[in-house]
Amino acid sequence: MIVAAGVVGLLFSLYQFWKVASIKLTVSGAAVNDSAKLLGGESSHRLIEIYNAIREGADSFLMAEYKICAIFIVIFGAIVLVLCSYVNLPGQTWDWQRGGLTALAFAIGACTSIVSGYLGMKVAVFSNARTTVSAMDTEHPWKKSFNCAFQAGGVMGFSLCALALLVLFFLICAYCKVFDIMDRTAAPILFECIAGYGLGGSSIALFGRVGGGIYTKAADVGADLAGKVVENIPEDDPRNPATIADNVGDNVGDVAGMGSDLFGSFAEATCAALVVSTSLTTGSDTGLSWGAYMFPLLISGLGIFVCMLCSFLATDLWPVKCEADVEKMLKVQLLSTTVIMTIFLYLIAIYWLPESFTVESAVLYAYENAETGTFTMEHFELKGSPLLAWGCVCSGLWAGCAIGFLTEYFTSHSYTPVREVAQSCETGAATNIIYGLALGYKSAIIPVVLLAVVVYFSFAALDMYGVSLAALGMLSTLSTCLSIDVYGPICDNAGGIAEMAELPEHVREKTDALDAAGNTTAAIGKGFAIGSACLVGLALFGAFITRSALTMQQISIVSPVIFAFLLVGAMIPFWFFAMTMKSVGEAANEMVKEVARQFRTIPGLLEGTPGHAPPDHARCIEISTNASLREMILPGVLVMGSPLVTGIFFGSDAAAGLLAGAISSSIQMAISSSNTGGAWDNAKKYVENGCVLVNGQVQGKGSDLHKAAVTGDTVGDPLKDTSGPALNIVMKLMAILSLVFSGFFKSINNGNGVLNLHRSYN
Amino acid sequence: MIVAAGVVGLLFSLYQFWKVASIKLTVSGAAVNDSAKLLGGESSHRLIEIYNAIREGADSFLMAEYKICAIFIVIFGAIVLVLCSYVNLPGQTWDWQRGGLTALAFAIGACTSIVSGYLGMKVAVFSNARTTVSAMDTEHPWKKSFNCAFQAGGVMGFSLCALALLVLFFLICAYCKVFDIMDRTAAPILFECIAGYGLGGSSIALFGRVGGGIYTKAADVGADLAGKVVENIPEDDPRNPATIADNVGDNVGDVAGMGSDLFGSFAEATCAALVVSTSLTTGSDTGLSWGAYMFPLLISGLGIFVCMLCSFLATDLWPVKCEADVEKMLKVQLLSTTVIMTIFLYLIAIYWLPESFTVESAVLYAYENAETGTFTMEHFELKGSPLLAWGCVCSGLWAGCAIGFLTEYFTSHSYTPVREVAQSCETGAATNIIYGLALGYKSAIIPVVLLAVVVYFSFAALDMYGVSLAALGMLSTLSTCLSIDVYGPICDNAGGIAEMAELPEHVREKTDALDAAGNTTAAIGKGFAIGSACLVGLALFGAFITRSALTMQQISIVSPVIFAFLLVGAMIPFWFFAMTMKSVGEAANEMVKEVARQFRTIPGLLEGTPGHAPPDHARCIEISTNASLREMILPGVLVMGSPLVTGIFFGSDAAAGLLAGAISSSIQMAISSSNTGGAWDNAKKYVENGCVLVNGQVQGKGSDLHKAAVTGDTVGDPLKDTSGPALNIVMKLMAILSLVFSGFFKSINNGNGVLNLHRSYN
Repeated sequence: MIVAAGVVGLLFSLYQFWKVASIKLTVSGAAVNDSAKLLGGESSHRLIEIYNAIREGADSFLMAEYKICAIFIVIFGAIVLVLCSYVNLPGQTWDWQRGGLTALAFAIGACTSIVSGYLGMKVAVFSNARTTVSAMDTEHPWKKSFNCAFQAGGVMGFSLCALALLVLFFLICAYCKVFDIMDRTAAPILFECIAGYGLGGSSIALFGRVGGGIYTKAADVGADLAGKVVENIPEDDPRNPATIADNVGDNVGDVAGMGSDLFGSFAEATCAALVVSTSLTTGSDTGLSWGAYMFPLLISGLGIFVCMLCSFLATDLWPVKCEADVEKMLKVQLLSTTVIMTIFLYLIAIYWLPESFTVESAVLYAYENAETGTFTMEHFELKGSPLLAWGCVCSGLWAGCAIGFLTEYFTSHSYTPVREVAQSCETGAATNIIYGLALGYKSAIIPVVLLAVVVYFSFAALDMYGVSLAALGMLSTLSTCLSIDVYGPICDNAGGIAEMAELPEHVREKTDALDAAGNTTAAIGKGFAIGSACLVGLALFGAFITRSALTMQQISIVSPVIFAFLLVGAMIPFWFFAMTMKSVGEAANEMVKEVARQFRTIPGLLEGTPGHAPPDHARCIEISTNASLREMILPGVLVMGSPLVTGIFFGSDAAAGLLAGAISSSIQMAISSSNTGGAWDNAKKYVENGCVLVNGQVQGKGSDLHKAAVTGDTVGDPLKDTSGPALNIVMKLMAILSLVFSGFFKSINNGNGVLNLHRSYN
Repeated sequence: MIVAAGVVGLLFSLYQFWKVASIKLTVSGAAVNDSAKLLGGESSHRLIEIYNAIREGADSFLMAEYKICAIFIVIFGAIVLVLCSYVNLPGQTWDWQRGGLTALAFAIGACTSIVSGYLGMKVAVFSNARTTVSAMDTEHPWKKSFNCAFQAGGVMGFSLCALALLVLFFLICAYCKVFDIMDRTAAPILFECIAGYGLGGSSIALFGRVGGGIYTKAADVGADLAGKVVENIPEDDPRNPATIADNVGDNVGDVAGMGSDLFGSFAEATCAALVVSTSLTTGSDTGLSWGAYMFPLLISGLGIFVCMLCSFLATDLWPVKCEADVEKMLKVQLLSTTVIMTIFLYLIAIYWLPESFTVESAVLYAYENAETGTFTMEHFELKGSPLLAWGCVCSGLWAGCAIGFLTEYFTSHSYTPVREVAQSCETGAATNIIYGLALGYKSAIIPVVLLAVVVYFSFAALDMYGVSLAALGMLSTLSTCLSIDVYGPICDNAGGIAEMAELPEHVREKTDALDAAGNTTAAIGKGFAIGSACLVGLALFGAFITRSALTMQQISIVSPVIFAFLLVGAMIPFWFFAMTMKSVGEAANEMVKEVARQFRTIPGLLEGTPGHAPPDHARCIEISTNASLREMILPGVLVMGSPLVTGIFFGSDAAAGLLAGAISSSIQMAISSSNTGGAWDNAKKYVENGCVLVNGQVQGKGSDLHKAAVTGDTVGDPLKDTSGPALNIVMKLMAILSLVFSGFFKSINNGNGVLNLHRSYN
């Protein structure tokens, strides 16, 4: 069934691609067909020019980024190979097979992530101009343009899930030839090697998120500041040389970055579930059957089928007919997949999981012997059942859905919170910022409580296995979520192209409406990505603890090492945040200066004299590319270096403290910053829609109130698209790194680290 | 010696008060003496008018606040009485003596806090106009005005420390009549009752910090927005009706609030040390001697002597002669007290602590019996010595000093970070905000690492006793720190009075220079307050764990309850932050509208026509007062309610998880927000000093760049003076609440809470 799901997913994404490609638009040269007739020569020519510029810009950035990634894969792969081979057991110092397999899984994971990101980006770029063209259709403009963008998103969504699932499945099959999965001592090592796959996916995601995030926001903030603040020309104005870079950024940041982020989540959640599934037994101390081991993969496989089914709802059964339908349809997608998944999940849990099984707790518990007053340390055993497993998966699934809709409440201008922020612009940018920050912090309350409930419930039900099932449950509707996420930037780009190609007003209106719905659902997607990252991080944390065999005193919250590293861990996300924010600020500054230079030196550009020389887009793209590649190194070193250094020098328990601190503060920062940014963005839109009145006067574009709103939006850009989402990776990457190197940490001074700072007990 | 220190401290503060009062300024009526002759009739009359307005505003606010506090003390005192009396032991359900003594200690602590805050505020208000007058001295303007402000600060600093110490000492003596301190089972209960003193101090501090913070920033932000943004009139302009409220705010927020905050820290740190000192034994299981028990109080007593000695350095030995001396002298104060304390601490440690003693770990450790394979659970014993205790105290002392100076590096415009922020205003307010936020997050790195090192070292050396000694060490230079802290708002007010009374330019220049130095040292003081709050929070956390007798599995970081509440706990500071930020925003909005109304309706006010009607200060003061009193309720309920609800419904271990999460995320938020705010403030000053050039042109007051800097400053106001510092209280208050109610939590289902959600072992 897993293979079937993978193959069907791939085929379905091919089908969607074929649908999108059937919208004719000759891309290779200037030869233009029927859609071009609609456009008229000049606009059509410009549309294709812009389309090509975006395509080339995105290609050149990704190539440069992937070149760095390739170097990274080789170097870090070597590190993984060496460190994971060092076992330091009596009689055996090195186990090259183990290190080799881990490094191989790492490389395969990294490459799959690159392929997924690249594919998604390609399709997104391929379909943005097509969405613009579809919006000009005289009969069904809404249906055609919506379907084009949505199906293009689907190509990414389904191909990524299918690819990830297939590659992982075959990797497990291959590794089973080396290790006997039925052997209770070999299975954990097998899955520890497989965890390299998650590490690979996640480390590429770091570069994708951070590099892409800096790229897109340097361009966006730069274009905004230069265009709106300094020179007073509208957004996406063709004269602004930074706009192409801005459009490229949407693709490399929001599509490729988001794709690799969620690919990482998927790969890691599965790896975590596999690692801890070795603590399950059935009957008298026998491990799971092959089918039960594959339960985590089955959840994802089922997800592909269900999402496929639901996507027909949107594209064929109830096609979008008017503006109001768009947002409604995207929400129906999310809700319907969640409901249908809940039902089918029950069936597969009943069918594939053993009727009853036992889960061993990750840590040892002390049992008192009432007579002697002494204790024995044993693993606590929990009785598991398919029903409980189903409960865990569903708790994650529904929490994800709820967090998504909560995020919408806090970031959509249909509700009070954003309207309050918009109104606060009346007294200037400062109150806007104050209200926006407060909104973001407030918006973290319920999602965190929800996550805490899910963690408590799934943990209490099935220990760490439950937590990883919850994470997988949240990720099971991934294909739909990704389709919707990718839909956003495609529409954004389509709008940009319409503006730059100077197409008729009604086209821009349609793309804007599509984009507005996309913004809302992108917010939902972001909430979902953060929530799942938190659960995945916790699941990996659990797997790390399981594999580290820490004693009770070591993981006590009242141990010097744990407490000190809890503080340090909680600081890491702040450090990371500072680095990435500053990078965006600096790159945007550079961009503003370049734009100002071009307006100064290119004659006729600012005035828009007919026949003036074109702006130098390439230079702006170069600035963004260089800045993002340069600035993604240090945050990467921080996130990947801190757990390694901690584990090596201070021991496994210090790493556990670090992880707990980092996860608990990342989640708050990630939610609040991405909601703050989203709220400012939509508050600005609300002002632009002319909905804010002061003393009965509409304060629209160009008013002082609008300027205050724009300031908030600009500050929010890096919060919501660079630093905030990158924290997702921080949570997951630190945890999976620790998991992959847990064996290595154990090999140094028995897990106490080089410095061996631990209290000696007697 | 403790009594001596207390009495000497009180006498010294009286001496300082006498010094300040000797600067003549007839305050009660319009009769004016020598200083008035300098001023000339009109200005002098206005000076006294302003002085009275500030005094009355501050009085009326504090009276209103304390009325609410009084109601709170009665109600919450009753809660303490009932809950702490409920012991639920076999044969005994209620222990009214215990609850009564705790409630009494609570009431005494609360009243002492009120008295300290009120005294400080009174003195500050009393001396602001005197500082202005001293700055007009023809012979030694620098020396006189500096000494006036500094000694006025000293009145607060020394009287607060002395009072806190004396009251606490006599309280202990009185309670020793009830419980036998030498009895190893009675002593912990004795100190648990005493902990009510800390709770009282800290809960008043919450109202002081939150209420005062909202008051001061509503007025400040309102005055700034109305004055600078909306109507383009300079800061402290006498026409602006919000300025008096702003000046009142400096006193109630920065003086009374800061005072009660640090009083709380002091009281709590001492209580924590006392509670855990019962885990110390000397020889064969005998408790400490009376002298050794009093060691924590001795540290503070010594601090009073040393700070007194050092204060003569500034006022008499090397008096301030020019502008550059001011900042230098304030820093010398801090450094010299730290150095001298280090030496004398060693002596008292050697003299009062037993030569060797044993510290019992807060939690049980599992010892394996190699033969049977079973374990025994025992308290881990650490060998203690005066030298180790001295090490713990000094680690806190020096870390506080280092954190203070680091804060200065990040918030003073003498160094790169703030200059970068100022320069970033070139591209508008948005980049200013982005750079400022990044700076704040970055500034948390080293302080958190330092705190982690202190916690690790002191914890490893003397378990929880070590942590509480480190906290006391940091607080031992409290008198000096408070003097310096109070110095800032006094100078700020002095400047405001000079401006409003339209005194000659050279007076304003002097008060501005004094104020600038005050800003820098206020930053140092803030860093110090945050650092000490973190250590105090941790020490209380340790005391709570010690008293809760949690088992190993309960405080495992990998327990469902702990982990879920770690997440929830880390969210509480964000929630609190959101509430207080929003309150300031709303109150400031109200203020802006009121100011605009006055400018509209009072004829001639905006134009400054001679003889126009005066602005209605009272209405602005009323707005601030009402807003702050209304808005301080909900944050208070959150902070005091969350540990109570958690402990009652989910058990002691859940409360421990909540505390760990709240402390680890509060510390980051507190440091970063107060530094971000400080940096924006000083970046604005840097711009105003004409130090920022764009293309070789100075961009001073009134330029677009300056407007961008002002936006940052306005956003920073609530960050640095309301939400940030209030988080100090959050850390401490949640922890001491849990400590005081630890007995009550234990009495419900054996510490498992009403819901009893815990796994049953076996």
